[in-house]
Amino acid sequence: MKRVLVTGATGFIGRHSLLPLLRRGYEVHGVTEAYVPADPAGVIWHQADLLAPGHVERVLVEVRPSHLLHFAWFARPGEYWTSPENLRWVQASIELLRVFSREGGRRLVSAGTCAEYDWGHGLCLERETPLSGATLYGVCKRAVFAVQESFAAQMEMSAAWGRIFMLYGPHEDRRRLVPSVILPLLRGQPAPCSHGRQIRDFLHVADVGEAFAALLDSPVTGAVNIASGHPAAIREVVQTISAMIGRPELVRLGAVQAPAGEPERLVADVSRLTTEVGWTPRYDLESGLRQTIDWWQAALAEKPS
Amino acid sequence: MKRVLVTGATGFIGRHSLLPLLRRGYEVHGVTEAYVPADPAGVIWHQADLLAPGHVERVLVEVRPSHLLHFAWFARPGEYWTSPENLRWVQASIELLRVFSREGGRRLVSAGTCAEYDWGHGLCLERETPLSGATLYGVCKRAVFAVQESFAAQMEMSAAWGRIFMLYGPHEDRRRLVPSVILPLLRGQPAPCSHGRQIRDFLHVADVGEAFAALLDSPVTGAVNIASGHPAAIREVVQTISAMIGRPELVRLGAVQAPAGEPERLVADVSRLTTEVGWTPRYDLESGLRQTIDWWQAALAEKPS
Repeated sequence: MKRVLVTGATGFIGRHSLLPLLRRGYEVHGVTEAYVPADPAGVIWHQADLLAPGHVERVLVEVRPSHLLHFAWFARPGEYWTSPENLRWVQASIELLRVFSREGGRRLVSAGTCAEYDWGHGLCLERETPLSGATLYGVCKRAVFAVQESFAAQMEMSAAWGRIFMLYGPHEDRRRLVPSVILPLLRGQPAPCSHGRQIRDFLHVADVGEAFAALLDSPVTGAVNIASGHPAAIREVVQTISAMIGRPELVRLGAVQAPAGEPERLVADVSRLTTEVGWTPRYDLESGLRQTIDWWQAALAEKPS
Repeated sequence: MKRVLVTGATGFIGRHSLLPLLRRGYEVHGVTEAYVPADPAGVIWHQADLLAPGHVERVLVEVRPSHLLHFAWFARPGEYWTSPENLRWVQASIELLRVFSREGGRRLVSAGTCAEYDWGHGLCLERETPLSGATLYGVCKRAVFAVQESFAAQMEMSAAWGRIFMLYGPHEDRRRLVPSVILPLLRGQPAPCSHGRQIRDFLHVADVGEAFAALLDSPVTGAVNIASGHPAAIREVVQTISAMIGRPELVRLGAVQAPAGEPERLVADVSRLTTEVGWTPRYDLESGLRQTIDWWQAALAEKPS
């Protein structure tokens, strides 16, 4: 029996992993702090605050999962790069790892980040590009990765680590790039952006959720980039959105300073994901952005803000 | 006012840092799980189990130290290289770091280890030798180091990290190298050893304690090797001991297999310690071993076992 516990299961990415996991035959247990989502049907929910003493232990003893998919982390836009909350998530992640193993867990996948890589390298390969995150967020994720790798080897537990690059899609925080362009344009307001020449890898969040389900369900271990493999300039993303909405004149490229320390080019080699895991995205940039604009349009129509 | 909280203050190394700290004018607060040592006089003791929920927080709120000297870790010989306890000490160390900063802490020094270095390099330099500990213990210490460095920079807190090499002295666990030779010889029994050709850096534990007090009291940040700078073969240590005790014929070099994966040569560059911190050892290998043999002789006379 494949019984998976998903942390961060109500979050931006986690919620998109649930249906793919159910379809792959998992008994799916989701951790939620308070809110219990209505769908997808079939998920068994457990209320817990993973930062509170004893909660990690209680849930793992209750569920005794064979699999663990760990998304939960502090992710408030503008704050997560530097917040001391990163330290609490290192603690909680290591608690999960330790108790999951003790309770007989066999296979786990955790969410990592492109911020673990040395950003001087542009193209990131999992087993070649040096790791030297310049941010507290990147350093903390990298620390958990190192402990996970070593501990899993020690305990003969199967473990992988999905490094997420850029993503977008339904339910995204409105302060992040894609909604920060879509929402003003839908309201006929100008959308101030940076110069937009940064090259990134964008993947629709539904594909990110599916990729993690596929990775968990595979025997692949170690770090695996979760990305599309199709680099795009941010201005290309912005211009695609504005063309689809039909308001290109409202885009203000260069109106906002690009954050200091941002690399020009940060893209993923996806050969591990495509060849070893055997997974490819459902959305390309165009269909993904179209779906996302439609979702925001429906969301605004339902509850204007 | 310089108020220091010392974790692991009753341990093999920690206890030797207390008097040096008092002499340097610190108000010294020691954490102890149970046993309250009688000396040195002047230490203020706090009972806490740093692995128990809430204890780190309680002690730090109680003491509000300006300085933190963090030695505590799982160190049971034969087990600490691979034990899941290493994960709990990552958690506790990060909790200390986080709450110390929140409570206004300004300067901290933690105990690291030569096991953080890639052992293929022989001579270890703090800012040049690659870090890639092959053991769970080394990986966990390295993870805490990375988080400490990044977090301290972020919070503008002064932080250093003392990497300990080999050590010996009073109160050492009897299963470790030096007592495992001294004790049988003092009893007239054979002392089985490995081939002894491994080159190491040995420092008397009283010097290790003083070096940490000096490092804490300096403005030096980052990793600093805590070692003598005088490499010696293990057989040289063993033969010095057996000559001092007068029983060279009882030493059985080669009777025990050297642990797999042990490097031939693992020694420290100590220029940061001697030049930047401005500290040099009080004992050389000969006087240190002499003092240690005398201590064990007295301990056996007091309470034979």
